[in-house]
Amino acid sequence: DRPLTVISGPCQLETLDHALMIAETLKEACSAVGANFVFKASYDKANRTSLTGRRGPGMAAGLDILSEVRNRVGCPVLTDVHTADQCTLVAQAVDVLQIPAFLCRQTDLLLAAGESDSVVNIKKGQFLAPWDMANVAAKVESTGNRKILLTERGNSFGYNTLVADMRSLPQMAKTGYPVVMDATHAVQQPGGLGGASGGQREFAPVMARAAVSLGISSVFIETHEAPDTAPSDGPNMIPLSEMPQLLSTLMALDAIAKATPVRL
Amino acid sequence: DRPLTVISGPCQLETLDHALMIAETLKEACSAVGANFVFKASYDKANRTSLTGRRGPGMAAGLDILSEVRNRVGCPVLTDVHTADQCTLVAQAVDVLQIPAFLCRQTDLLLAAGESDSVVNIKKGQFLAPWDMANVAAKVESTGNRKILLTERGNSFGYNTLVADMRSLPQMAKTGYPVVMDATHAVQQPGGLGGASGGQREFAPVMARAAVSLGISSVFIETHEAPDTAPSDGPNMIPLSEMPQLLSTLMALDAIAKATPVRL
Amino acid sequence: DRPLTVISGPCQLETLDHALMIAETLKEACSAVGANFVFKASYDKANRTSLTGRRGPGMAAGLDILSEVRNRVGCPVLTDVHTADQCTLVAQAVDVLQIPAFLCRQTDLLLAAGESDSVVNIKKGQFLAPWDMANVAAKVESTGNRKILLTERGNSFGYNTLVADMRSLPQMAKTGYPVVMDATHAVQQPGGLGGASGGQREFAPVMARAAVSLGISSVFIETHEAPDTAPSDGPNMIPLSEMPQLLSTLMALDAIAKATPVRL
Amino acid sequence: DRPLTVISGPCQLETLDHALMIAETLKEACSAVGANFVFKASYDKANRTSLTGRRGPGMAAGLDILSEVRNRVGCPVLTDVHTADQCTLVAQAVDVLQIPAFLCRQTDLLLAAGESDSVVNIKKGQFLAPWDMANVAAKVESTGNRKILLTERGNSFGYNTLVADMRSLPQMAKTGYPVVMDATHAVQQPGGLGGASGGQREFAPVMARAAVSLGISSVFIETHEAPDTAPSDGPNMIPLSEMPQLLSTLMALDAIAKATPVRL
Repeated sequence: DRPLTVISGPCQLETLDHALMIAETLKEACSAVGANFVFKASYDKANRTSLTGRRGPGMAAGLDILSEVRNRVGCPVLTDVHTADQCTLVAQAVDVLQIPAFLCRQTDLLLAAGESDSVVNIKKGQFLAPWDMANVAAKVESTGNRKILLTERGNSFGYNTLVADMRSLPQMAKTGYPVVMDATHAVQQPGGLGGASGGQREFAPVMARAAVSLGISSVFIETHEAPDTAPSDGPNMIPLSEMPQLLSTLMALDAIAKATPVRL
Repeated sequence: DRPLTVISGPCQLETLDHALMIAETLKEACSAVGANFVFKASYDKANRTSLTGRRGPGMAAGLDILSEVRNRVGCPVLTDVHTADQCTLVAQAVDVLQIPAFLCRQTDLLLAAGESDSVVNIKKGQFLAPWDMANVAAKVESTGNRKILLTERGNSFGYNTLVADMRSLPQMAKTGYPVVMDATHAVQQPGGLGGASGGQREFAPVMARAAVSLGISSVFIETHEAPDTAPSDGPNMIPLSEMPQLLSTLMALDAIAKATPVRL
Repeated sequence: DRPLTVISGPCQLETLDHALMIAETLKEACSAVGANFVFKASYDKANRTSLTGRRGPGMAAGLDILSEVRNRVGCPVLTDVHTADQCTLVAQAVDVLQIPAFLCRQTDLLLAAGESDSVVNIKKGQFLAPWDMANVAAKVESTGNRKILLTERGNSFGYNTLVADMRSLPQMAKTGYPVVMDATHAVQQPGGLGGASGGQREFAPVMARAAVSLGISSVFIETHEAPDTAPSDGPNMIPLSEMPQLLSTLMALDAIAKATPVRL
Repeated sequence: DRPLTVISGPCQLETLDHALMIAETLKEACSAVGANFVFKASYDKANRTSLTGRRGPGMAAGLDILSEVRNRVGCPVLTDVHTADQCTLVAQAVDVLQIPAFLCRQTDLLLAAGESDSVVNIKKGQFLAPWDMANVAAKVESTGNRKILLTERGNSFGYNTLVADMRSLPQMAKTGYPVVMDATHAVQQPGGLGGASGGQREFAPVMARAAVSLGISSVFIETHEAPDTAPSDGPNMIPLSEMPQLLSTLMALDAIAKATPVRL
């Protein structure tokens, strides 16, 4: 019932200055409309479409940047982990460990993330039904850690296309865990550019608005000041300059949605 | 930019008294929240899952009921047509001719509906992409009739399941025609009960809210005072008693959505 | 258990000479390998993607051509019907009435086709599960006509794409009716060319071979001597000159498949 | 152009005696029909639907069993790897490293598998298009290792269901690498039993026959002497006693298919 949380940042970490600039801008935009803010960025894109895609600064350098953002901007920080042995170290630098969608059934990774005692945000695989996430969450729960978020980011729909089923959000909420809409990955076109994923940036606000109108906990939106030259996920990131207007609309929808929430 | 139009009524016509009761109730509920209202009901369910499904009162008796509703309640009326030769006669009794989703590519039916000079609401086939509807609308346009509505009612998604892609609404709006979200058919489970279609009534408000948050023209919601005993589509109709609350939420979302509409 | 039947011909009727040429060529090719042959062509393409697509010679002229082919070539003839009132007349000129996939749930059409006492070939809708066809066939059966064929022609799979599920063939065969694989429509890309459907002609033999290896009754393959200039479905038709080699492979696979048929 | 290779064995390793029994039985059945044989079993099911699913004997014990099978039965052995650091050790015990479908985009795993200099069998993710596998294979190729196999095991098709697109096999073969049909995983129903995956064992021969009729390199079929009590994937495994008949049919189809192979 609390106001919307906005998980946002660039897809991939670049430099400390870049991360700070984006985090400061977003923190201010969220404050202006009364939203909570969590900074998101990845230190390693471990599953690029193609070997030539840029992967990021790597774990050591990336965690340094994320720690700095957390300290200087004063906001919680989220990043994704890829193997069980990364969890302990990453959990020291960030507040939320994110399980990538492709890895959401890897038992050892889920257990290690749970044992880190961080918040764990699990992205629903493009190949899973919403109700399958109860089994996934139970793997983390088995460690005694119940600080779990469940994120919708689209389902496989034919080839090179995803579709976001809005039923997924209240369905996953039946677990009792907060649900998140990943508005920018849900409009990815996986592999759609041959050697890279395409995306439909223009539809990301559609996904965010539709989901927020249901009364969800959080929206996840990747952003960049110049998406067309970003090292990854440019086609689906929202320009940073458009975030304030979008957040303002989302907060207005959120207030109405949470006054009469959808309950299954 | 006008306030939301609500196209609503029972799936299938039963008696005149029943139609009047539902139309009156809905008209009042729409007035209370400032929504436009169009009454919807079918005189013939021409494509039931099974031969044993009830089809309705037939065209002659059905059009009599629809005319009476229009006159006595003072609201526009919508019904669906199934063959080209029905269009002229039906157009005399109702305000909007609806093209069923399965028939949305039948050229002769589209031309006849266009030539009736009624408003024509075309439901997007479960097998069509949103952009394919430009070709469909062009068939009606060729008759000189540009009073066209385009309705999303879900896409095939595996077997016995539909998924509603929210991108479809702004995509279809690029044609310049008003778009409608059919919130109750989008949660059908075609053939899901073996000899009849199932449905997930609990998700119809999800579809309506998500769509309205984008700033669409109209929402289509089938309703019944006792859905579980309705002659068709009971599993996905919303109880009539729940409509006022839902409409109130939708109108609040509509006001925000239309202040900052999604434009492609 | 009889040898494979090949239902083949051009998508759309052109001239009598053209129809005779194709029918003669196919009859000879089928005889050469021991396959049964049914000639197929349409007199009206009633659901073209776009209004500008050519529809064919119309019913009167088309039935004249089909009758002539039947008489002169001495083969059974199949064509599709679009409204209930066409069935009686069409049934006088041809041996098999075909129900188009989009229309496979239209009760009146199925009943009229059944009452004609012709063989009725029902194409499974792109929006139906294989098991849903039992309800569809029951509509025809209710007329006392059990001369029914059930055809797989692909399911909706995301946008502008079909996928053919090979499980569908033995699943539909559980009805007891012969099943047909439509190898050329299963590789259509509906709406894939914007104003027309695209197709992947190169995969039609894939569909035919895969299906025949299961021991089905018939394969449906549209063909043309110059597919790239054909008035409809050119992108997915197989060149006539490639039919003899394909039929030879199919008959060899058919012999093995029917020695150890798949049974559910 | 060589005769079909059969990759087969139980889903999950149980005991050495059990593995030897199955390997011996399969080797004999393959020899009887002239097929090549590769033994397959997993030492760790690392992504079970539910935490309570049995995972297997673990890497150390599992590799001991696999080595013993290889030595005593005299057949190549395949198993799957889950993290980059497993590859070197596993490659000493087996002939083929298999990349699980969920992990087919994990760059580090693909590179480590390539560097092991083993044959690498990559299962296509349920979320990938066939043409996307060229990028995946290129990650392994970048290590200088071109001993690559590409396996179809079904695509996401709505919820809890897969569909196997037969076009995928010739499409992937355009890479130049041998393609494999995984006939038993393609009929899985992921999550279909709530806490475990269901399956449609009766359709596994459908998938195998259809694929082999196209002239593929290999078929992958999990089998067990008592599938209903197997520790994993029982619902989709074929009973061991049915393998000889199936292999006989497949070899007959293979001979015809490879006489006139499908080429794109």
